[in-house]
Amino acid sequence: MTQDAPLDITHAIGERLTRLGQTLATAESCSGGLIAHRITNVPGSSVYFLGGVVVYSNAAKMDLLNVPETDLAKHGAVSEVVAQRMAEGVRIRFQATYGVGVTGIAGPSGGSPDKPVGLVYIAVAGAAGTFVTRNVFPGTRQDVKEQTAENALNMVLERIA
Amino acid sequence: MTQDAPLDITHAIGERLTRLGQTLATAESCSGGLIAHRITNVPGSSVYFLGGVVVYSNAAKMDLLNVPETDLAKHGAVSEVVAQRMAEGVRIRFQATYGVGVTGIAGPSGGSPDKPVGLVYIAVAGAAGTFVTRNVFPGTRQDVKEQTAENALNMVLERIA
Repeated sequence: MTQDAPLDITHAIGERLTRLGQTLATAESCSGGLIAHRITNVPGSSVYFLGGVVVYSNAAKMDLLNVPETDLAKHGAVSEVVAQRMAEGVRIRFQATYGVGVTGIAGPSGGSPDKPVGLVYIAVAGAAGTFVTRNVFPGTRQDVKEQTAENALNMVLERIA
Repeated sequence: MTQDAPLDITHAIGERLTRLGQTLATAESCSGGLIAHRITNVPGSSVYFLGGVVVYSNAAKMDLLNVPETDLAKHGAVSEVVAQRMAEGVRIRFQATYGVGVTGIAGPSGGSPDKPVGLVYIAVAGAAGTFVTRNVFPGTRQDVKEQTAENALNMVLERIA
């Protein structure tokens, strides 16, 4: 007897959300749509994936997700607070069980000593509150995007009750 | 002397938009974020890519893009009219020079004799009006997503003045 292959993370998320009748929405900055792309590669994902936004500009973060201008001004777009506000904002906007918010610096430019290329905040909001992580991912722009998506999907899977 | 390799389409779009000082926003249904993901793989894309939305539900199409409920009811979510409304809606929402709208059936389920799996409408809206194509792409869910993104990006490049 061979062991079953472990379920791919996006399929595992889908299986769990479908079983629980729960839903998901995404708010992406530096990952640029890759999280939504990976989620929607799964057949049947339209049952639990309500949609998402890719918000590169501060204007879009405010308009689409109701991120307060004061938080953007005080903490910057790449910050724990803004990731949290994005996750909570997209959860409300789509009326989803879970909201994912990602903001970071994919590079190769845009970094600074305080906020280096690869710095990414990932937040997952749900009924039980919002959980945020700070990450610094190595590699190219595409490496940063891929690690951001992988980590965000893992966080979602962990938070699903 | 060797010939220069042809510029990848997303780099060609970026080069042209940057040179013209123009911007782009995306509204995706069946491509699920892949168009935004491909655009944002290009370093410097934050200069001209304002953002996008992934709208699987009719509610999200209405709320985020102001697609009229009457159009969804009369023509269905997968229709030429709705693709056009999505492109125009996201262009206005992000105040972008160009808006892309995509709606279709990636499969493997959801098809019908009238609207088979692989049917995808792609629209590009700009100051000169909105251009829409009807496509039926073969293959798997991922094949349909990839051909949708490739064709949408080609249409964008053709429309940039």
